[in-house]
Amino acid sequence: MKALGLIVEYNPFHNGHSYHLQTAKELVNAEIVIAVMSGNFLQRGEPALLSKWFRTKMALLGGVDIVFELPYSFATQKAEVFANGAISILDAAGCESLCFGSESGDIHSFQHTIKYIGDHHDQYEKAINKNIKTGVSYPKALSLAYNEVANFNGLVNLSVPNNILGIQYMQAIKKQNSSIEVFTIKRKNADYHDLKFSSETIASATSIRKAIFSKVDQIEQYVPTTTNELLKQYLVLYGSFHHWENYWPYLQFRILQTSPQELREIYEVEEGIENRLIAASLTSLSFQEFMEKIKTKRYTWTRLQRICTHILTNSKKIEMNTNQEKATYLRLLGMTQNGREYLNKMKKHFQLPIVSRLASYKSKEIELDIRAGKMYSFGLTNNFARQALINQEFSQPPIFINE
Amino acid sequence: MKALGLIVEYNPFHNGHSYHLQTAKELVNAEIVIAVMSGNFLQRGEPALLSKWFRTKMALLGGVDIVFELPYSFATQKAEVFANGAISILDAAGCESLCFGSESGDIHSFQHTIKYIGDHHDQYEKAINKNIKTGVSYPKALSLAYNEVANFNGLVNLSVPNNILGIQYMQAIKKQNSSIEVFTIKRKNADYHDLKFSSETIASATSIRKAIFSKVDQIEQYVPTTTNELLKQYLVLYGSFHHWENYWPYLQFRILQTSPQELREIYEVEEGIENRLIAASLTSLSFQEFMEKIKTKRYTWTRLQRICTHILTNSKKIEMNTNQEKATYLRLLGMTQNGREYLNKMKKHFQLPIVSRLASYKSKEIELDIRAGKMYSFGLTNNFARQALINQEFSQPPIFINE
Repeated sequence: MKALGLIVEYNPFHNGHSYHLQTAKELVNAEIVIAVMSGNFLQRGEPALLSKWFRTKMALLGGVDIVFELPYSFATQKAEVFANGAISILDAAGCESLCFGSESGDIHSFQHTIKYIGDHHDQYEKAINKNIKTGVSYPKALSLAYNEVANFNGLVNLSVPNNILGIQYMQAIKKQNSSIEVFTIKRKNADYHDLKFSSETIASATSIRKAIFSKVDQIEQYVPTTTNELLKQYLVLYGSFHHWENYWPYLQFRILQTSPQELREIYEVEEGIENRLIAASLTSLSFQEFMEKIKTKRYTWTRLQRICTHILTNSKKIEMNTNQEKATYLRLLGMTQNGREYLNKMKKHFQLPIVSRLASYKSKEIELDIRAGKMYSFGLTNNFARQALINQEFSQPPIFINE
Repeated sequence: MKALGLIVEYNPFHNGHSYHLQTAKELVNAEIVIAVMSGNFLQRGEPALLSKWFRTKMALLGGVDIVFELPYSFATQKAEVFANGAISILDAAGCESLCFGSESGDIHSFQHTIKYIGDHHDQYEKAINKNIKTGVSYPKALSLAYNEVANFNGLVNLSVPNNILGIQYMQAIKKQNSSIEVFTIKRKNADYHDLKFSSETIASATSIRKAIFSKVDQIEQYVPTTTNELLKQYLVLYGSFHHWENYWPYLQFRILQTSPQELREIYEVEEGIENRLIAASLTSLSFQEFMEKIKTKRYTWTRLQRICTHILTNSKKIEMNTNQEKATYLRLLGMTQNGREYLNKMKKHFQLPIVSRLASYKSKEIELDIRAGKMYSFGLTNNFARQALINQEFSQPPIFINE
């Protein structure tokens, strides 16, 4: 069975994802689609709109056959680490191909870019260092250096997040000696940074989330009916979606009860940022206000959000093993009948253990996922709803959809 | 100027307190009344109904001239440590006498009791150890041992919290070689454990708080009009009073984000109670439910509440110096004109520094008070109200009442 791998967050699953999935499946002639999906906290350092279980249901009803969780220690990280974790999971699960979305849809320009960066390594490093010294953030320094060195000669635009991820996926495949073949599909009418709906049926996840939170615009036309139904169900079950502002009191509480020394034990809290965090949390009424107060040229919004996520989940430097290049387990969040058959047939060849039940697997890394699951529950203000979500992390078997 | 010392919590200040204050003042012919008052968290391990600033106003309007804060490291402790801190502050502030409330109002029975315990020390210790082995809590073992040894021969009843405190005050005075003279006044019509109002104008603080939270009964007749006005003002300003249930989500959050090892760093978390705390917080919908789940014969409700308070305020074993027998500063919460004159005249003779502004004094011990002040703010659900209270800890000068 030919397996296609996808790397996703599905926050939430929408028509653009559906388009990508169907097109990719046809492109590589896949019999099975395996998605590795961020759990409750996402790469940009944000809580997902709704839990990984609901997002898994959306994925399965949208055409994915198997969903594995990208562990917290990879998911809430910069693109390079995120890609390492995701690729290692798809590779371990026997995927033959990976198809990612990009602005150009041209895989050759990605290959060309990787080669070009490799050939101009010293020049590129020099330019990065020069830019860092001006006080800008690391991603900004990368992007500036890249523009200086590459000068846009048919190379991909590395100021677009999806393109950066694409490059990192390809480099992770190379580094891990994986045989996964890479494809890319042009993203359809959805500019990641565009906050307005841009076509009749496809809109970015960002604009869909904005519409959901503003409760003004309708989203039905931009998501499959299954997604729309699950969004409604979530509200009925849990009373609200998850948003950083819901977590603000807890983040503020934790920062204000913690000494600077203790805060520095948290992953990515360094260079004295702990003092800025404490000072800002003394005077901020909201997460937005807090973020604006701690934002500097040197720290991207995304990096700061990830720091906040690590504080919320109490993820320590000693726990987040940054040298870990590959995942160590496949946490199964859900599968279709088709997915189950694939697993039954193939799992003996898998390079990593499948974790279907938390009780049967112990590791330092999965402890972080479990804790993140519990902390995610605090985005719900209702005590009953929160309790239900806390317990789901332990009691929920993988979602099974029998089409 | 002859100064009378009182050791209080005023949660809230009521007619019983007023009666005690006036009677004591006349009894010792005092010109000035100095109260040492628990801050935002109380000896029973509970958040005070309203902030120390409002309780200070109540005290000053009720006849106290000077209010000093009993530091967190003494206030949220068993009777012995609580008494050590309180006596050291009254002694340092030049009090010539102390008057505490008791069931009997007979100081001789207290003196007799202390002597009797001293004379029967070995027998008493043996009885304590014997009782501890049966698995009961330490206070229970003390009380049982005392009953066995003393056999009620004209001694005070040590199953009553106020009597225990009285004994501890007197022992602290002896230990600290203080020249404070002790008096006691019979508590009027207010049985500490009685939840029902028991007379026309005097009721226990417990029953008043119960009435406030149930919003059914009227409390006007049991408190001075000044207290009643301040209670109303508090609701207008902050939206709610403080109750353990308001802190439950934060306590649950903190326990669930923390490893057993890290929890054991918290003061009084020992003997494996950390595992009980974690297990219970996974399944409890409220503080009440949580407490019922962690309650054992060995741990009193009060001790467990104090543990919860220390977790909430993140007070570590290394911070709570248990060998500290005396306070190291006098944090001035408020004064009347009369109090100010006393301070101006007497402070050069004080054995400890007066802290009027946080900015001008640094110590490890006062850091705990500051943190407790911030954490107390999280009992308010409104972001604005919470922020106002967080900042008050730093911006509030001592309350001054010019009668």
